[in-house]
Amino acid sequence: MRVTVWGENVHEQRDESVRALYPDGMHATIAGGLRALLDGADVRTATLQEPEHGLGGGVLAETDVLTWWGHAAHGEVADGLVARVCARVRNGMGLVALHSAHYSKVFRALMGTTCSLRWRNDGLRELVWTVAPGHPIAEGVPEVFAIPRHEMYGEFFDVPPPEELVFISSFAGGEVFRGGCCYTRGRGRVFYFSPGDQEYPVYHQAEVRRVIANAVRWAGPRGPVAPEPYPAQRSETGWFETR
Amino acid sequence: MRVTVWGENVHEQRDESVRALYPDGMHATIAGGLRALLDGADVRTATLQEPEHGLGGGVLAETDVLTWWGHAAHGEVADGLVARVCARVRNGMGLVALHSAHYSKVFRALMGTTCSLRWRNDGLRELVWTVAPGHPIAEGVPEVFAIPRHEMYGEFFDVPPPEELVFISSFAGGEVFRGGCCYTRGRGRVFYFSPGDQEYPVYHQAEVRRVIANAVRWAGPRGPVAPEPYPAQRSETGWFETR
Amino acid sequence: MRVTVWGENVHEQRDESVRALYPDGMHATIAGGLRALLDGADVRTATLQEPEHGLGGGVLAETDVLTWWGHAAHGEVADGLVARVCARVRNGMGLVALHSAHYSKVFRALMGTTCSLRWRNDGLRELVWTVAPGHPIAEGVPEVFAIPRHEMYGEFFDVPPPEELVFISSFAGGEVFRGGCCYTRGRGRVFYFSPGDQEYPVYHQAEVRRVIANAVRWAGPRGPVAPEPYPAQRSETGWFETR
Amino acid sequence: MRVTVWGENVHEQRDESVRALYPDGMHATIAGGLRALLDGADVRTATLQEPEHGLGGGVLAETDVLTWWGHAAHGEVADGLVARVCARVRNGMGLVALHSAHYSKVFRALMGTTCSLRWRNDGLRELVWTVAPGHPIAEGVPEVFAIPRHEMYGEFFDVPPPEELVFISSFAGGEVFRGGCCYTRGRGRVFYFSPGDQEYPVYHQAEVRRVIANAVRWAGPRGPVAPEPYPAQRSETGWFETR
Repeated sequence: MRVTVWGENVHEQRDESVRALYPDGMHATIAGGLRALLDGADVRTATLQEPEHGLGGGVLAETDVLTWWGHAAHGEVADGLVARVCARVRNGMGLVALHSAHYSKVFRALMGTTCSLRWRNDGLRELVWTVAPGHPIAEGVPEVFAIPRHEMYGEFFDVPPPEELVFISSFAGGEVFRGGCCYTRGRGRVFYFSPGDQEYPVYHQAEVRRVIANAVRWAGPRGPVAPEPYPAQRSETGWFETR
Repeated sequence: MRVTVWGENVHEQRDESVRALYPDGMHATIAGGLRALLDGADVRTATLQEPEHGLGGGVLAETDVLTWWGHAAHGEVADGLVARVCARVRNGMGLVALHSAHYSKVFRALMGTTCSLRWRNDGLRELVWTVAPGHPIAEGVPEVFAIPRHEMYGEFFDVPPPEELVFISSFAGGEVFRGGCCYTRGRGRVFYFSPGDQEYPVYHQAEVRRVIANAVRWAGPRGPVAPEPYPAQRSETGWFETR
Repeated sequence: MRVTVWGENVHEQRDESVRALYPDGMHATIAGGLRALLDGADVRTATLQEPEHGLGGGVLAETDVLTWWGHAAHGEVADGLVARVCARVRNGMGLVALHSAHYSKVFRALMGTTCSLRWRNDGLRELVWTVAPGHPIAEGVPEVFAIPRHEMYGEFFDVPPPEELVFISSFAGGEVFRGGCCYTRGRGRVFYFSPGDQEYPVYHQAEVRRVIANAVRWAGPRGPVAPEPYPAQRSETGWFETR
Repeated sequence: MRVTVWGENVHEQRDESVRALYPDGMHATIAGGLRALLDGADVRTATLQEPEHGLGGGVLAETDVLTWWGHAAHGEVADGLVARVCARVRNGMGLVALHSAHYSKVFRALMGTTCSLRWRNDGLRELVWTVAPGHPIAEGVPEVFAIPRHEMYGEFFDVPPPEELVFISSFAGGEVFRGGCCYTRGRGRVFYFSPGDQEYPVYHQAEVRRVIANAVRWAGPRGPVAPEPYPAQRSETGWFETR
């Protein structure tokens, strides 16, 4: 399994507080978690600032699962790349969208909705509850775990009803959030996971790393990613007879 | 629309605290809410203590939507009646299962799961969040409302993943609960709604009455309830040609 | 309920065969079916050739449910209008996408997939099977009905798994198609229905008219369509306390 | 992965035609397919005629995935065993229900519906279409394959709407059938697959064997099957704080 961890890498450059938590960038920490937990996975990173945002030169074409974190610079992601990423998801690549990637161009285009939500950065406790204990993404994840300090994300979360809802979060202020959502788009699979905000050490936390690793494994394609999107296909009567 | 509100009517007989809240029985209060909110609905009540639990003599056969509240005496409901209620649901009757009816024989038989859950009666605040704002059962229901004092019901709630999830509750202790769940069984529709416990005046509350009335309207059959369950049906080639 | 029937109106202008079937345009026939079956509905039509494709000047803003048929000129629909239609769906307007509208800009943007399919215009029989007999869109629709001559649409149909699957078609050549699919996008509801091709008198057929009328009623909003999309909403702790 | 292939083994004993196709019993052929396709799986068989139907003495307790084929003798399966099988599914064991097992006590109890369907044994061709090409159960399965001669199973199939619909069949007579359906019950997963009738060599066919092997792998639990069903669980405030 070839995994590319995409990081916007803006906060890490400009915010001392974020750099203190993620000295090599959030993407490096996320990638480290995957390398530790996914035997045999080939994990690399890519960032906004690289040419073609780090996804050119065959990188995207050699990616089986892409994780995406962005926040401050969604608008700077080139539309052409967004179209290529979405096409590859539909062709079978897995996508794991993390936290503020709910507002990324890629995720919004795949969902067809605003992906808006309620929020408040008060740094209080979030509890993540497993509501699909037999789901592959919940394997080895406790029935509930706490993120000691985090930003609140609350309902209404304007996404299509998830095909499978794996986690629901509650917050100290009383809000709830469907924070672990599975979707199918074409041959590809998409998982949205609401932790974690750049101001908190969420991606160092064992339970979060476990969920992301499980999600990458779940989202991975069963065979080769198709080279082209599904076409409109004219088929003669009995086209399947001689197969 | 002919609605029958079924009440176990045990706590009301033996617990002074419950009788104080519901002097005519919880079923009477629930029925009153439906009469006030559903124009033209024909609403009656039935209780465990009546012959055939109040559902004989044509009552069940003349019911389009049945609401069910039980807690202390699930085991006393006759198995034959349970089978007839389930069959009528599959034939098209709507069912609205309320609070501790999660453990009723009827609901468990229709779900195929244990319907177990976590609980704690600490009488603290429950918040009910709408997560499907365009759903008919959410019509006129605020994006969030509080039940000032209530029993906690928490995950994991062992039901099949709801076909539509309309409400999620959070509790003062941090728990969450999928408290508004839609299902299809045969031609019939089932809605589970987690409020309210007998110790609190939940069924007097406007938002709760609104949800239950919406659920009854949503669950109601589009045409006559079928007289018989779906049969195994041998059909000759072209059976539909002459229809 | 205010319904706008949008028709591309290209085949009717240039193809004698289509004009013979639909002398006033396909949109006029579809609108006639709705007027006949939906008591009290206010039904108008709009076409590609009109200014703002007939949806300007308040028409879109006064539409509760929009039906959409297009085929030959998807690319001519202005992107700004597409964005406004999609936004209004997310805000609560119903959308009923008909036949080749699977490839319309509006439907594709709401689905997030290619919406590709298999096809063959051999004019043989299609059978439409009801697989959700208790669904509002199936009300009064037989368990199976035939479209005597029609274009084949076959799997794989590259849409997200439908939230509710109401109809499946089979074709004389053996293909199948998920031809009646329900979706939620924001507060709005979307129904895709695969009949009918412009070369056949499908929209004159009673069963098809019944399905479309049911779909319009089902897709209609429960209250006023929201004026704005869901925003990203910063909410103070306890924002809901004083509501 | 420990797999038990349960076979009713009645037709094989009394019908020469079936014995000719399956001299060692249908269960032996199904088990052979699994052994050939699932590396490292421990596959055994059990039949109705054995003591405790072959599932006593620890066999059920040591089964991770159970496949079930029955037809002529559903009523002879002991109710106590049915309850134990259903409980083990809810605790995490996978279940793959095959063909006429739609009417088995186990499958009906888990579904909560009649599981009735339309049928006709005319021995004509069935086409199986993949409608979820990215699903694990569709891995390596062609977009369509034919079963040259088979019994027809047609809609309406009275099961809950499948959580994931992987295959739809069409038949020479025009009928369609949702023949590959996924469900969750508790921690366990259930797959229903409509091929094959005892009168045809369906379980010798490569595509069918592939689907069943994929389904077994998909349905397998992620960890140990729980020893007990989910309980009603009273939890003190903060019960999760010290975990």
